[in-house]
Amino acid sequence: MNRDDPEGAIAAAARSCSNWGRWGEDDRLGTLNHLTPDKRRQGAALVRRGDSFSLSLPFDMNGPQKGWRRRTNPVHTMLDTGTDAAAGLQDFPHGIGGADDVITMPLQCCTQWDGLGHIFDHGRAWNGRDAATTVTSQGDLVTGIEHMAAHVAGRAVLLDVGRVVGGGELPDGFAITEAHLVTTAETHGVAVGRGDVVLVRTGQLARAKRDGWGDYAGGPAPGLSFTTAEWLHRSEIAAIATDTWGFEVRPNEFAEAFQPLHQVVIPHIGLLVGEMWDLEALAEDCARDGVHEFWLSAAPLPITGAVGSPVNPIAVK
Amino acid sequence: MNRDDPEGAIAAAARSCSNWGRWGEDDRLGTLNHLTPDKRRQGAALVRRGDSFSLSLPFDMNGPQKGWRRRTNPVHTMLDTGTDAAAGLQDFPHGIGGADDVITMPLQCCTQWDGLGHIFDHGRAWNGRDAATTVTSQGDLVTGIEHMAAHVAGRAVLLDVGRVVGGGELPDGFAITEAHLVTTAETHGVAVGRGDVVLVRTGQLARAKRDGWGDYAGGPAPGLSFTTAEWLHRSEIAAIATDTWGFEVRPNEFAEAFQPLHQVVIPHIGLLVGEMWDLEALAEDCARDGVHEFWLSAAPLPITGAVGSPVNPIAVK
Amino acid sequence: MNRDDPEGAIAAAARSCSNWGRWGEDDRLGTLNHLTPDKRRQGAALVRRGDSFSLSLPFDMNGPQKGWRRRTNPVHTMLDTGTDAAAGLQDFPHGIGGADDVITMPLQCCTQWDGLGHIFDHGRAWNGRDAATTVTSQGDLVTGIEHMAAHVAGRAVLLDVGRVVGGGELPDGFAITEAHLVTTAETHGVAVGRGDVVLVRTGQLARAKRDGWGDYAGGPAPGLSFTTAEWLHRSEIAAIATDTWGFEVRPNEFAEAFQPLHQVVIPHIGLLVGEMWDLEALAEDCARDGVHEFWLSAAPLPITGAVGSPVNPIAVK
Amino acid sequence: MNRDDPEGAIAAAARSCSNWGRWGEDDRLGTLNHLTPDKRRQGAALVRRGDSFSLSLPFDMNGPQKGWRRRTNPVHTMLDTGTDAAAGLQDFPHGIGGADDVITMPLQCCTQWDGLGHIFDHGRAWNGRDAATTVTSQGDLVTGIEHMAAHVAGRAVLLDVGRVVGGGELPDGFAITEAHLVTTAETHGVAVGRGDVVLVRTGQLARAKRDGWGDYAGGPAPGLSFTTAEWLHRSEIAAIATDTWGFEVRPNEFAEAFQPLHQVVIPHIGLLVGEMWDLEALAEDCARDGVHEFWLSAAPLPITGAVGSPVNPIAVK
Repeated sequence: MNRDDPEGAIAAAARSCSNWGRWGEDDRLGTLNHLTPDKRRQGAALVRRGDSFSLSLPFDMNGPQKGWRRRTNPVHTMLDTGTDAAAGLQDFPHGIGGADDVITMPLQCCTQWDGLGHIFDHGRAWNGRDAATTVTSQGDLVTGIEHMAAHVAGRAVLLDVGRVVGGGELPDGFAITEAHLVTTAETHGVAVGRGDVVLVRTGQLARAKRDGWGDYAGGPAPGLSFTTAEWLHRSEIAAIATDTWGFEVRPNEFAEAFQPLHQVVIPHIGLLVGEMWDLEALAEDCARDGVHEFWLSAAPLPITGAVGSPVNPIAVK
Repeated sequence: MNRDDPEGAIAAAARSCSNWGRWGEDDRLGTLNHLTPDKRRQGAALVRRGDSFSLSLPFDMNGPQKGWRRRTNPVHTMLDTGTDAAAGLQDFPHGIGGADDVITMPLQCCTQWDGLGHIFDHGRAWNGRDAATTVTSQGDLVTGIEHMAAHVAGRAVLLDVGRVVGGGELPDGFAITEAHLVTTAETHGVAVGRGDVVLVRTGQLARAKRDGWGDYAGGPAPGLSFTTAEWLHRSEIAAIATDTWGFEVRPNEFAEAFQPLHQVVIPHIGLLVGEMWDLEALAEDCARDGVHEFWLSAAPLPITGAVGSPVNPIAVK
Repeated sequence: MNRDDPEGAIAAAARSCSNWGRWGEDDRLGTLNHLTPDKRRQGAALVRRGDSFSLSLPFDMNGPQKGWRRRTNPVHTMLDTGTDAAAGLQDFPHGIGGADDVITMPLQCCTQWDGLGHIFDHGRAWNGRDAATTVTSQGDLVTGIEHMAAHVAGRAVLLDVGRVVGGGELPDGFAITEAHLVTTAETHGVAVGRGDVVLVRTGQLARAKRDGWGDYAGGPAPGLSFTTAEWLHRSEIAAIATDTWGFEVRPNEFAEAFQPLHQVVIPHIGLLVGEMWDLEALAEDCARDGVHEFWLSAAPLPITGAVGSPVNPIAVK
Repeated sequence: MNRDDPEGAIAAAARSCSNWGRWGEDDRLGTLNHLTPDKRRQGAALVRRGDSFSLSLPFDMNGPQKGWRRRTNPVHTMLDTGTDAAAGLQDFPHGIGGADDVITMPLQCCTQWDGLGHIFDHGRAWNGRDAATTVTSQGDLVTGIEHMAAHVAGRAVLLDVGRVVGGGELPDGFAITEAHLVTTAETHGVAVGRGDVVLVRTGQLARAKRDGWGDYAGGPAPGLSFTTAEWLHRSEIAAIATDTWGFEVRPNEFAEAFQPLHQVVIPHIGLLVGEMWDLEALAEDCARDGVHEFWLSAAPLPITGAVGSPVNPIAVK
């Protein structure tokens, strides 16, 4: 990997990892094709205690966003309130009162899935489509996240690299390699394979919770090394999610680059990528009972034409 | 039930169905307390084929809302597009391009959960709290939907009253009684009990899909009779959801009233109520294989202080 | 004018009316260049009684929009309320309370100016610029409405074609020609010339106020004939505004067309166009005192990169 | 003025400055009642050169807001773009293309007017009204800013206290007293009286433009002393605006307080207050030609029920 040639490295990785055409010309699911009904049966069989964990951060104004590319934190406002109801200011009969609310938020502001229309490589979107005609001002006309609405439920695995390799937390700038992933899985005694959703905990979020957001949104962070592209492809996982803003290590591993691993895994592998997942409580539990596999439901909101979606992923052990 | 005295009827039902204090003074979950880990194990055991169903309508401008109480349909806009990326108009290196998006929507606009702070009875919120200080302009300071984030996953049952009683669809204004619910469950051969999530299909949505929204949002509709309050309480279900705008029958069964059943079930029973769920594909499948029980994940987005949440419920059989 | 060849007619009109290059390659003002300080002195001299008129419709949910191209009516919500303040629910000292609010609205939803980046002809924007690089997802990078912030104040003239030609209101589909404009000005005894802002009242809004919005937003309407392009250019007016949704007559005068006059006047003439202005009270006053010229301030909000702006135009007589 | 008794000082000032009832029980204009047609004639007569100045900051993401009380900077997004149009991605005939846009913004985020419903004193709004029933979640039901739509146009005066007293800029925390205002007016040779709009330049904005926003939104700032309440009342001005976030000096002059002058001038005097006005170019011009009086149009957007409005004020000399 030539530090000074991200474009060449990306092109090479794209060639060797490409899933273009693998599921037909009309495919809108990418690696979710690996997540079969059989995988859901396996996942359901992992529900032993029946305890559930939300892997979502709170959606509110106290989030990590600072306005980069107009990404703000969610703004939640009330249309009607209990205060108004109690003051008798609503025109409803027989003592009924109500409260309604509204939200305005970037779909990339908090715990989220990146849709297949989120990243392009030289004007090409997933499956080789022309980015220009796929994602216009009207939204993603082909691979909108609504096509994934029913799919993201199955077996998931936690790889707590922060604990295994970092003794709790990986430092910012730490590049997680295939070797780290394999070692972590072995240490956990868990298998990772076709159709799994893989959750990688770096521990950066634990740090942010303790010390404040700082530059969590876009600053230095531990994350997947560019070199994991091959593993991400070869392992045939259905999806991956991390507890960081941007999934891959930052600063990126090239002299001048911006999220080069995204440029391979989304348009070429068709990989579903989750970001800003809160894996803390789940990881604590896994460390306690030694079980790192579980049921996961993480259905995106079917926002027509969206290139991403907020999500409240639920793990059940 | 005196048609001319909704206030009296509501007060009587509230008295006999009240769960106030049942789970302590600090409770923020209401009937979700019935949804125990054991229930999740039962639910997971129902995953037989591994097929999953999204029960969400599309979130877009083509939804049913017409502006009542400022409830609009979701407005989804792009911050960056593939068209821009392909035209070389983004300041990113090595050929990467990206698309981002934003949504503005009432939390009650589409497939949703009503939170515990959504409805009040004479200025009282769930568990007897003062509505005035519980849900202010800052949102629901006590029972915000974020408290339910990890809970809504377990065993669910479909009661296809539309098919069993209505031969497919119930007409608008049809009041579903306890007898209808019981008959439907018996016909399906399915038990309904403590901790279940009950999905009631009226068939109205099938009509709306065929004929257009018309007055789906707030007009006449089939739905639960006010008289089912007792059953909703006694059965100890964890949650209920329908394929209609407002869960209960409309016009309401009193001479002059507005959603009287809400006034009992939300503040007094603490019942989690879902609305505008798309049960069509699931119901079709259940009619085909005769199995009306399944796993359900329907986690609300943990929007801090929200009195409701959009949701993409996933059923797995 | 060949009814079946809008493209040819537009091309011909564009050629004969083009102002490209007239004010230099860097121009961002178009016909506002005609509105000179001298013109403002003339306008100020028309303030005789000191009576002012707002020419804006209310910005609220009761507006004409129906969702075409995601154009909704404005949604105004409160962040803090007097109800909360009076209930002592705000954390402020010494008895102070406050209310704040938020708005979400398309810039084209109500009384507005169309900016120079609003309409293109075959991929060309005002002054011959490439539309692709001028108005991206980041907004209008060149001719954003902020460049007009200080300019729109000067002499204005009301041409009440509705009263003079239509006896009060013109019917929908009525095409206002140069002859109608000239006759109206003569009847009013008012001169129209270089640097003036021309307000054309059709009377359609009076009808909408009386009968309801109906298809006001995009349906049939009286308006400027395509043939007025020459006059709009030759007269060297600074801006024009009407009491209709779309300025030009609808249905448009070609067999199949969409706003062909826009395609000439905005990108080629560089004309500032106002729509949905409420001219009723002003027109009433002008009819009463026979004076159809006055001071006008109609400053757009300087929203960076916007292709239009809501505006509350103030006429002073 | 007892530094430790803001509540007492406010009560005393409120008593001595109250305009409650002065313009009748139904009044919705407050001190705008002072701005008569005669005043507009005087203002128009001040248009000598015809040069116009926008006094508005840009409305965009680069504004001063940091999220206090959910006040964000404006978020402007595109519904359609020139890039899409040029790529032939819009379904329009004969080569026409278009761009539309949307804005979401707090009405208090940038250059603005505070409406009469913005501030309360012990649950009382302007004219003695009950704040609880005046400004609910539905907005300001009585004194919404729409009632001011036609009024804010007339004679204005710049008091450049920053230049006269501060040699350019006043330091943060500098309290401008009546003596400073009088001295400045005398130095300028300009009279201030009944019905005038008074623009007070502190110079803080010049500093923010040079050094970055810092804590411009809510931090220390020069501004009107609490003691000016009497002058603001006695002078019978129609409105006042400053180049600061909050009009009055910060930290406020009491040991523990929050905007005490607001609590007097808005609910008791009924004074229209403008904030975050950009007076730099205008002040430069006034310093050059020595003329500190001019025409001003500063019409709020008539957003129904709003407690404030963004505004692009236009001064013409």
